Formats: sequence, C-alpha cells, structure tokens
Amino acid sequence: MSKLFASMIFLQEIFDEHAKKDGDPNTLSKKEASDLLRSELMMEPKQVDAEKLFKSLDMDGNGVVSFEEFVTFAAAMTMVLPRKSCSQ
Amino acid sequence: MSKLFASMIFLQEIFDEHAKKDGDPNTLSKKEASDLLRSELMMEPKQVDAEKLFKSLDMDGNGVVSFEEFVTFAAAMTMVLPRKSCSQ
Repeated sequence: MSKLFASMIFLQEIFDEHAKKDGDPNTLSKKEASDLLRSELMMEPKQVDAEKLFKSLDMDGNGVVSFEEFVTFAAAMTMVLPRKSCSQ
Repeated sequence: MSKLFASMIFLQEIFDEHAKKDGDPNTLSKKEASDLLRSELMMEPKQVDAEKLFKSLDMDGNGVVSFEEFVTFAAAMTMVLPRKSCSQ
C-alpha cells in the first residue's frame, strides 16, 4: 500500500475506532474526541483546553465531530507540524 | 508513533520525496506532481487528465503545488475515499 493510501486509511481507522465507542458510530462525541486526542497526540488536555480543542474540531458547532471535520483538523495539524528541513 | 502522527509524517515524506527532485524543494512542479500521483495512486493519467488533476492540486494557479495545497488535496481525497462500513 502506498504511503498516501496508508495515510488516508489511518485517518479512517483512528476516527472509526473512537467514533464507534458510544452513540453514533459516524461522529465523535466530546468524550470520544478527547480520548482520541489523548491517545493519538499523547496529550493530557486540561479541562479548559479540552473545551477549546473540541470547539476547534467541531467547526459547525453542532456538538459532535464529523469525519470531514476530523480530517480537516488533521490536515491543519499536518500543515503546521515541524518538517524535517527539505534541504537535507 | 501513533497512527495520526504516522499519517501526518507520511504526507510530509511523500511531498518532500517528490518536491526535491528538481527546482524548488518546497514545491511540486507539474512533472513532480504527476510522478507523485502515478506512484502513490498507481494512476496513469492521460495527458488531458494530468492537466485537470494538476489544476485541482494547484489551487492558487501559480504553476506549482505547495505543501498546503498537497495536504488539502489529500484531505479531500480522504473524505471521499470509500470507508469500511462503520457498523462492522
């Protein structure tokens, strides 16, 4: 499998793994999103930060995170993630 | 490394691998973009399709593809890539 396909499949797998825990398997609840960030980013967001993080994920403000919102968040993070210097 | 980090790093690696081939190592030329799509998506775009594909990648129309444009393209593809059924 190419790296590009693997990258895309990974995002699907991460989302599905967490979204199916409770309620609607097609969206992330606040708890599911917080668990995802904790396990995937090894972050321990303090409560206030968790609220802010969730708001940045839940772009349409409907209280849950769709797959599209999750991918958009992951893309934004990819763009700001420090990159190995290209001239290497 | 978490899947989310791996997914992000893969996009960086794919882009850098192709962008450094000629000219500016921070952007994809038309040829580099076409090579990337061919190797990563196992596609053999006919000339006319390659033009269209390049235009969909080169969102600001400046003749090259930036990392941000590439990540935006990959995110859009991730959103439309058929997903294993969530109810499994």
